[in-house]
Amino acid sequence: MSAATKAKVLATARRLDYVVSPDAVRLAGGPTRRVALAVPHLERWFFGEMVSGIETVLSAAHFDLLLYQVGGPDDRHDFFTRLPARRKVDAVVVVAFPVDQHEQERLALMGVSIIAAGGQNADYPYVCIDDYRAGRLAVDHLLELGHRRIAMIAAHDPDQPGWPARPGRSAAYVDALTEAGIAVDHALIRDVDWGGLNAASAMADILDAAPEHAPTAVFAHSDELALGAIRTLRRRGLRIPDDVSVVGIDDHPLAALTDLTTVHQSVREQGEIAARLVLETLNPSPTADGGVPTAVTAPVTLTVRASTGPAPDRRRPTAATADDSPR
Amino acid sequence: MSAATKAKVLATARRLDYVVSPDAVRLAGGPTRRVALAVPHLERWFFGEMVSGIETVLSAAHFDLLLYQVGGPDDRHDFFTRLPARRKVDAVVVVAFPVDQHEQERLALMGVSIIAAGGQNADYPYVCIDDYRAGRLAVDHLLELGHRRIAMIAAHDPDQPGWPARPGRSAAYVDALTEAGIAVDHALIRDVDWGGLNAASAMADILDAAPEHAPTAVFAHSDELALGAIRTLRRRGLRIPDDVSVVGIDDHPLAALTDLTTVHQSVREQGEIAARLVLETLNPSPTADGGVPTAVTAPVTLTVRASTGPAPDRRRPTAATADDSPR
Repeated sequence: MSAATKAKVLATARRLDYVVSPDAVRLAGGPTRRVALAVPHLERWFFGEMVSGIETVLSAAHFDLLLYQVGGPDDRHDFFTRLPARRKVDAVVVVAFPVDQHEQERLALMGVSIIAAGGQNADYPYVCIDDYRAGRLAVDHLLELGHRRIAMIAAHDPDQPGWPARPGRSAAYVDALTEAGIAVDHALIRDVDWGGLNAASAMADILDAAPEHAPTAVFAHSDELALGAIRTLRRRGLRIPDDVSVVGIDDHPLAALTDLTTVHQSVREQGEIAARLVLETLNPSPTADGGVPTAVTAPVTLTVRASTGPAPDRRRPTAATADDSPR
Repeated sequence: MSAATKAKVLATARRLDYVVSPDAVRLAGGPTRRVALAVPHLERWFFGEMVSGIETVLSAAHFDLLLYQVGGPDDRHDFFTRLPARRKVDAVVVVAFPVDQHEQERLALMGVSIIAAGGQNADYPYVCIDDYRAGRLAVDHLLELGHRRIAMIAAHDPDQPGWPARPGRSAAYVDALTEAGIAVDHALIRDVDWGGLNAASAMADILDAAPEHAPTAVFAHSDELALGAIRTLRRRGLRIPDDVSVVGIDDHPLAALTDLTTVHQSVREQGEIAARLVLETLNPSPTADGGVPTAVTAPVTLTVRASTGPAPDRRRPTAATADDSPR
């Protein structure tokens, strides 16, 4: 443990009125060859894929993985209060949820390395995508197809307030529209609790709110939201993409099955990178100059499938030059 | 540890040329308050949901969970050869994969309790659904709607040969058709490697193989397979359920989103039950008469949505009595 980390741990401990046992700190920093994962929602594809990638690399390095689910407020409070992984692990990987100031202080008490996977968190080494860039790829694609009335279905997890994916993706939408000279219309924006069925309701709301100015395209913050929107559109008799184009983010396995245009991210690869950040932090490679890497931005790419097409007016004969003049 | 288990462990150890340390056996049976999960595919919904249910109950009982992914032949060989969980856990939960004779002997060497979740395995206490019953609910539903040309898309995992879900669900199909006086037509049956895109190809094969006798319904062994079949049917211009009905098994979260009729199982609940089997095995309740439960069959229920409807001939005016005479 570096002197700086030690000082930080002790300072935090004093403030929290803790007595830190030197033995415990040594033990916690010792070679348990175990790594803890704190994960909000194991049953969701993103998290399963991430944990799978982390496990593959760490088990090959003969590390064991301790799994802690911290999705709900109770689990989360319990995890940070009891610190069940304390003295049992060499490192903790925090998977895609925001760690608040108090929780950071609790983690510091463990005296172990912390890595953030699937999102940036405090000053921990991290791997994640650039949410703004992912959003721009999606919205710019719709703009290039000639869409100007573009709805957005954003999502938040009420149990993880402040998670940066939503503001990043939303800012991309606002900027892309603004740069294209399109006023942001709040009647076309909904922010829902995570989940496809909520997105289906949000889509119905949007259609009902402005029946005379229905959107010709929808940008959903994730593929599951996009599939929810598509359900509503289909039930209203709207054709995809003839009447409405829909784009998501993730490239969930069902996106290929449902012909959904989306922004691809490799979540498994992010998990593998997070695991390598753990290994490198615990045992810095002698050949690496400049020390341990602390930030990896995983690539995102637009994957065009059948759920997006030219804006309806672009398909009229008079708009035959659409392909030559993408906006 | 019972005398019988001890004798079995020692006999197995002798045969495998192992020297079993009495200390190690005692340690392995001691109160580590850790449970190992051996899971084939964390990135698939079924497994994530199962692990989530197990974690919820065990963490509430202040147990830690060690996670081992054993999907591919290499992982699996490594897990059973190295027994990385040995001396580290009180119990192992084997999640939905078949443990062969050699692997059972390796597990016995650990001298800990073994629980099977999501499938029956050797003589371990288990929780799972009745695959035959799930299959019957799906196929009987199609028969009651008047379908007689019913395709089946079954799935196997090449890395987990011998898993009982497939034969159970397939036997249900054969029996249901036979009882209804319908000859089983092998041109309507495909067995694919797990995954929606493979099911999409299988559906295309079935349609191409017998274009003049296309099925009016499809029974898929899982929802993801059903969604793959639907993709192909839609691309061929077939309407669902007007031209072809499709039913799956699972009630995957996207089944509700895609209006898929399916056989519901609560995988999370099976995970919670598996965890309670662990707790009960490690610390039998004094109030339970008859000892520790060893087998729990989780319920399955038919969930009818918009992907199934009357067979095309049932919708003709002359078949108006269909509703009164379900077969």
